[in-house]
Amino acid sequence: MKSTLASILEEVRPLVAQGRPADYIPALAEADPSLLGIAITEAGGGVTACGAAGVRFTIQSISKVLTLAYVLERVGEAAVFSRVGKEPTGDPFNSIIRLETSALRKPFNPMINAGAIVVVGLLPGDSPDERFEGLRAFVARVVGRPDVGIDERVYESERATAARNRAIGWVLKEMRLFEPPVEDVLDVYIRQCSIALDAVELSRIGAFLAFDGRSPLDGRELVAPRTARIVKSVMMTCGLYTGSGAFGIDAGIPAKSGVGGGIVAAVRNRMGIGVFNPALDSNGNSVGGVEALVRLSARLDLGVV
Amino acid sequence: MKSTLASILEEVRPLVAQGRPADYIPALAEADPSLLGIAITEAGGGVTACGAAGVRFTIQSISKVLTLAYVLERVGEAAVFSRVGKEPTGDPFNSIIRLETSALRKPFNPMINAGAIVVVGLLPGDSPDERFEGLRAFVARVVGRPDVGIDERVYESERATAARNRAIGWVLKEMRLFEPPVEDVLDVYIRQCSIALDAVELSRIGAFLAFDGRSPLDGRELVAPRTARIVKSVMMTCGLYTGSGAFGIDAGIPAKSGVGGGIVAAVRNRMGIGVFNPALDSNGNSVGGVEALVRLSARLDLGVV
Amino acid sequence: MKSTLASILEEVRPLVAQGRPADYIPALAEADPSLLGIAITEAGGGVTACGAAGVRFTIQSISKVLTLAYVLERVGEAAVFSRVGKEPTGDPFNSIIRLETSALRKPFNPMINAGAIVVVGLLPGDSPDERFEGLRAFVARVVGRPDVGIDERVYESERATAARNRAIGWVLKEMRLFEPPVEDVLDVYIRQCSIALDAVELSRIGAFLAFDGRSPLDGRELVAPRTARIVKSVMMTCGLYTGSGAFGIDAGIPAKSGVGGGIVAAVRNRMGIGVFNPALDSNGNSVGGVEALVRLSARLDLGVV
Amino acid sequence: MKSTLASILEEVRPLVAQGRPADYIPALAEADPSLLGIAITEAGGGVTACGAAGVRFTIQSISKVLTLAYVLERVGEAAVFSRVGKEPTGDPFNSIIRLETSALRKPFNPMINAGAIVVVGLLPGDSPDERFEGLRAFVARVVGRPDVGIDERVYESERATAARNRAIGWVLKEMRLFEPPVEDVLDVYIRQCSIALDAVELSRIGAFLAFDGRSPLDGRELVAPRTARIVKSVMMTCGLYTGSGAFGIDAGIPAKSGVGGGIVAAVRNRMGIGVFNPALDSNGNSVGGVEALVRLSARLDLGVV
Repeated sequence: MKSTLASILEEVRPLVAQGRPADYIPALAEADPSLLGIAITEAGGGVTACGAAGVRFTIQSISKVLTLAYVLERVGEAAVFSRVGKEPTGDPFNSIIRLETSALRKPFNPMINAGAIVVVGLLPGDSPDERFEGLRAFVARVVGRPDVGIDERVYESERATAARNRAIGWVLKEMRLFEPPVEDVLDVYIRQCSIALDAVELSRIGAFLAFDGRSPLDGRELVAPRTARIVKSVMMTCGLYTGSGAFGIDAGIPAKSGVGGGIVAAVRNRMGIGVFNPALDSNGNSVGGVEALVRLSARLDLGVV
Repeated sequence: MKSTLASILEEVRPLVAQGRPADYIPALAEADPSLLGIAITEAGGGVTACGAAGVRFTIQSISKVLTLAYVLERVGEAAVFSRVGKEPTGDPFNSIIRLETSALRKPFNPMINAGAIVVVGLLPGDSPDERFEGLRAFVARVVGRPDVGIDERVYESERATAARNRAIGWVLKEMRLFEPPVEDVLDVYIRQCSIALDAVELSRIGAFLAFDGRSPLDGRELVAPRTARIVKSVMMTCGLYTGSGAFGIDAGIPAKSGVGGGIVAAVRNRMGIGVFNPALDSNGNSVGGVEALVRLSARLDLGVV
Repeated sequence: MKSTLASILEEVRPLVAQGRPADYIPALAEADPSLLGIAITEAGGGVTACGAAGVRFTIQSISKVLTLAYVLERVGEAAVFSRVGKEPTGDPFNSIIRLETSALRKPFNPMINAGAIVVVGLLPGDSPDERFEGLRAFVARVVGRPDVGIDERVYESERATAARNRAIGWVLKEMRLFEPPVEDVLDVYIRQCSIALDAVELSRIGAFLAFDGRSPLDGRELVAPRTARIVKSVMMTCGLYTGSGAFGIDAGIPAKSGVGGGIVAAVRNRMGIGVFNPALDSNGNSVGGVEALVRLSARLDLGVV
Repeated sequence: MKSTLASILEEVRPLVAQGRPADYIPALAEADPSLLGIAITEAGGGVTACGAAGVRFTIQSISKVLTLAYVLERVGEAAVFSRVGKEPTGDPFNSIIRLETSALRKPFNPMINAGAIVVVGLLPGDSPDERFEGLRAFVARVVGRPDVGIDERVYESERATAARNRAIGWVLKEMRLFEPPVEDVLDVYIRQCSIALDAVELSRIGAFLAFDGRSPLDGRELVAPRTARIVKSVMMTCGLYTGSGAFGIDAGIPAKSGVGGGIVAAVRNRMGIGVFNPALDSNGNSVGGVEALVRLSARLDLGVV
């Protein structure tokens, strides 16, 4: 497996020059686009890693799957899906338009910003600190590192440039899709985007989803099988922004990307995968991450469809 | 397996009263909503069937996956996807709006009517008859019945009520997304929707997709593995209209429904499934079909994510 | 007045180089963009003309105000406005999108193509020929030339390139906004766009509207005062495509333009104006026409607001 | 004139039962829907009033025309119209959708909330207090009452329920359409909506617009003629929300309504009109106000088109 990963990284490395780091905040723009790492967690918890798999980065939108899993467990499927849909949409991740025109009167799914903000608004707790701490502790359990935390510099940068998300927050507030104050919800949303992990830790996230909610290490149930199914299903249809359909064809596995350069993938009953490369394509997905996953899927016949 | 299917049909039967046959044309509205059948084709081509699995119905939108597979083989992936996208959309199947507002300037995917009409426009041949015959012969090969044909009554009804599809056709024409005359393309589109099959035959369609393009009976390659992957991937994200995401969560398998009451599903390396029940839910999907597939997936752990 | 018109044309002449003839059909693209003419019809029917005021051109969208006036007289206000709205829209003239998304379920107003096609669909008569002849005879009465007819070359060109309007026609058909066959309605719509008039005749159209529906020559009532008010009001809010608001500010008078290069304007109780110059701006309005009307309005203090 | 107004109010009074006060904030919902008043200011400044013309109410959206006039004078036409368009739109007043989909990348016009908020963002001054005081003093000059102020109760109510306007404010901020902090701009926007005037004062606003920017009383130029023209032109196309087109047909005069129940109208060189009745129709326009203006226009032949 180690040599498979190494040869894939070798193939992919020349391609990352096609991408560029996210440029909407300075802290992300400074990332080194040549960084490239991959890690796999298999049944039993064994990890195989290659390249920059120990470099931490902010998980950004990958946090959406973690919050979704956690909130489903804490408040239940009915409460979540009365406020956010389950259907994919061709809209960009930060679109407002459908909130106005759709008969649904709720965001299409939990992977677009509007839907993810609604899910954050459902986190239990009496303060932003309490709400975030619940989520953070859950992530720490999943990845097996108690001191999981945020990248303060990215957090501060994103707070200062969140006009679009504030607009979305106020539209959702008007639609009464969450209770807490808008600024409190956005604060937790930005914090979760700023959580810093590495590719090995991403692969553990992929693994607990792949093994139907159980820790691959000790078999402990972290979330119910149904919760894992929901999360993976949403990843399959909406995990790579407006590149989700193409990735489904090319790689054929549920995955979720973030503009920090990470992608997490889950292959049921086989493995979790984490990849990291901050060079993004025009859809906002990691160039190296997508290419590595497509090759890995072909090499190991991982495609689920 | 036979008893599994029987017990599932028994569970599902009371639920079909929640749905109603499609009412937009008389020929569909007259269907008996209590008809319920299911069939499975497994490796080797063995079929297990139960209920009304031998009753023929028009496949309607299920034809979209057959034409997509056939056209991909005949004109190639590049020609197809330069004219139609691969991404899911939250729009209704008969929406025009995104053709105007999307930067793509092509239909989102081959499962919405606009995208399917573009694919029909790519069928090789010099006349509507030639174009349809190529497709029909392909379907006949897949299902193993040389005389596959259309339901003339449904065809005539749909021709007379196709105003919305004509509008879509003219928008596509203006965008130069197909060469033949609009009326010719629509004629073939309506013919393919009127193809009459039964649930056993649907299960054979599911099976050749499940086995990566090979006939489950004789192992002959009907389409390339990549073609089968593309088709199943699009089914996974867009196969059940605006109920695709929910079905992905509940059943977790690639499937395609039609308003005639059929649903075809493909479980990679395991089986193809065909279900038939003309009672439709508000999304236009067969009530009995969805319920049977959800139960079958749970019973046999078919979920791919 | 003659010298006023002459000095205005002199000022405007250098500006027409900023525009270009309509290029969507060859017959329009060949027009000489330096042609520039203006005519005024005042109370009593006296005409003052200057420049190329006797050159005929196709009136294109100017026909929309004539059909609206005629159909209002023939079928009544209630029948018209149950099928088309009265409100301006920021959409382009050939937009389809609002037919889908608006709660109105009818075109916004009779000046966009969709609305104009609905109005054409209401023309009385048993055949396209009969329907068009009623309208043509009305126009002939208004402009005082019995043999008013169409430019056959433009008509044929437009028929061959009407994909977008055909799409609109089929959407309207599906919404049951007119009775006759789509092709019949589009045929009359294209014929009315191809009616050929000159600037003097346009000024007579402006005059009968300016004088509340009465012929300025003989005082005969051609349409009811209410009909004239409706038409002028719609011209005021929607007469110059997406340049209507700017023209309202700059010229301050109700007007209607066509991509053939004509603009008709009506100043209540004072005069009708016709201008002609085939050089169009990016909104599709005659550059020379707009500039001449703005100057004339300033010179004679014609602004109504 | 007095008896004309009295007979019109008598005719209109029974109709106000068809409307209801605005219900989105308690302070407006409590208004007495039977209150009905009208006032006219003619050349020379003479006022004729009838009914509840001395009852103060909050001017709400009528403030949009005052701020537009004031800001045009202070920062110039170019600065204003680089940030907001001049074109009418069929969208509801509080729509966000067009900010995303329109190629303009700015609000359609200064009468919808998005456009009005942009104009407020251009008010000169270093603080919300300074910005509002400049506007307030201008309004005081126009209506001839130095102590013009706001209704604190309405102001507080609106501040507490401004989620949709906050969303719009953040979208505009992201588009860099104004400099000051979002909350500061919204605060001034809500204050201007809460300015309390009576129908006599509204008629003076109408009059200074009708007389091309000059005070009807002393002939002093309050704004340039071009500014008055711009404001009236925008009123003509967008003054009554989604009822603008219908009002243009029925009354034929530029006017602006507010959900507080007021409407101001301006008939060039003849008069300014103020009407007040808090019963609103489904478009958000005063039922009594619209009906009175339609009758007054017919009685005095005020229609400008």
